[in-house]
Amino acid sequence: MKKLQVIKIGGNVVDNPELLDAFLSDYAQLDTATVLVHGGGKIATKIGLSLGIEPNMIDGRRVTDKETIDLVTMVYAGLVNKNIVAQLQAKGVNAIGLTGADANAILSHKRPVTTIDYGFVGDIDEINSSLLAQLLNTGYAPVMVPITHDGKGQLLNTNADTIASKVAVGLASHFEVELVYCFQLPGVMKSIEDENSLIPEMNQSAYEELKRQGIIAEGMIPKMDNCFDAIADGVKSVRICHAQHINSEVGTKLF
Amino acid sequence: MKKLQVIKIGGNVVDNPELLDAFLSDYAQLDTATVLVHGGGKIATKIGLSLGIEPNMIDGRRVTDKETIDLVTMVYAGLVNKNIVAQLQAKGVNAIGLTGADANAILSHKRPVTTIDYGFVGDIDEINSSLLAQLLNTGYAPVMVPITHDGKGQLLNTNADTIASKVAVGLASHFEVELVYCFQLPGVMKSIEDENSLIPEMNQSAYEELKRQGIIAEGMIPKMDNCFDAIADGVKSVRICHAQHINSEVGTKLF
Repeated sequence: MKKLQVIKIGGNVVDNPELLDAFLSDYAQLDTATVLVHGGGKIATKIGLSLGIEPNMIDGRRVTDKETIDLVTMVYAGLVNKNIVAQLQAKGVNAIGLTGADANAILSHKRPVTTIDYGFVGDIDEINSSLLAQLLNTGYAPVMVPITHDGKGQLLNTNADTIASKVAVGLASHFEVELVYCFQLPGVMKSIEDENSLIPEMNQSAYEELKRQGIIAEGMIPKMDNCFDAIADGVKSVRICHAQHINSEVGTKLF
Repeated sequence: MKKLQVIKIGGNVVDNPELLDAFLSDYAQLDTATVLVHGGGKIATKIGLSLGIEPNMIDGRRVTDKETIDLVTMVYAGLVNKNIVAQLQAKGVNAIGLTGADANAILSHKRPVTTIDYGFVGDIDEINSSLLAQLLNTGYAPVMVPITHDGKGQLLNTNADTIASKVAVGLASHFEVELVYCFQLPGVMKSIEDENSLIPEMNQSAYEELKRQGIIAEGMIPKMDNCFDAIADGVKSVRICHAQHINSEVGTKLF
């Protein structure tokens, strides 16, 4: 099967023009088919503050009222996405920007209100894998915005890590998929203080052992669980690495 | 040949939620393939003012400095485009939003500085007709933002009327194309004051006669010239009508 990399970059890359440019140059050198998923970054918060929209976060998730969904639609789908697409085009990548609404790429539903009302936040129902496979097989590189739609006209703010994971799983029957999460560290570290403590690879049983020892704890657990879930659902491997290392083998490989 | 309608709506439709919703409902009923081109509207100016960006217009064209290209990219490609796409999806149209950068749909160059420096404004070099024909033949309805790119990473603000015209011409070898300009009047009027003075149809020689009589004058002349140029370049017909009438025959038909 043809190889595909589904790569997620976070706000730290999006917010830093030099890091973003270097990342996109490396991205353009990849010899596999690719899907890029970008998060938002601090720029949405900054522009929101200029517009008098105060950020409201609960457990690291943005509560998305009407003004905020308009804000993130402007910033993520407009400013961030189109600049990434134009820069990739300049580097020879035939990028095409997509929200979940475009070509019905990702259908979601508004998260039900329980103790917390997250507002216009979407939980994914369905990835349009055939659309994405068709675009990839025609030579396009989808650049995906973490905004989806409910099929009834409502745009919904959606977690970018989850989009990357669901897209990777959705395409696992079409491609041999590597899911790549770029973040601020070289990979999963035994100790944040020790830069030589990178764990180069990990399978499910090694992960269980590291959890038991308390080396992987807290916020990393749901992220790692998501990664192993993607592998259980057909993704070949997951790599967690620094955005500067997408073109090398450096990072933590989960399989 | 299969029929295609390339329809341009202006700011008066985009800025009016009820008119836009009614227009999109009518749009969803069209039985041809369609491309929608939307202008920006006053919302970009309004959001710009909130961000401290004063509009600077020369001859009805926005002078586009760095802050302004970022602003229109946010508002047109983000807020306006994605809401139109989501609403069309809800009405059963498989809409896909595109700037000129996406899939290299429209390549342009920055307008050279002469007496006026328009800033980041693009004049179109090439429409990617094969991409658009491929999307249309696969059942997608492109929804195009009046922002293009120069292939070197720069996004450029581009006249939406011109995009509609060039897209119509570019697709004339693939489809039997009707180019439709929606605006605030029922069509071309002999007299603005007389609502019964609609000119239902006009060919080039009738147009020349109306110009000679001074009935078509000033700002309408370049618009009409563009329409007849599109016909000379292969577009089957052009219709100028109110946004409420896209599904009827009401309007001025140029052929």
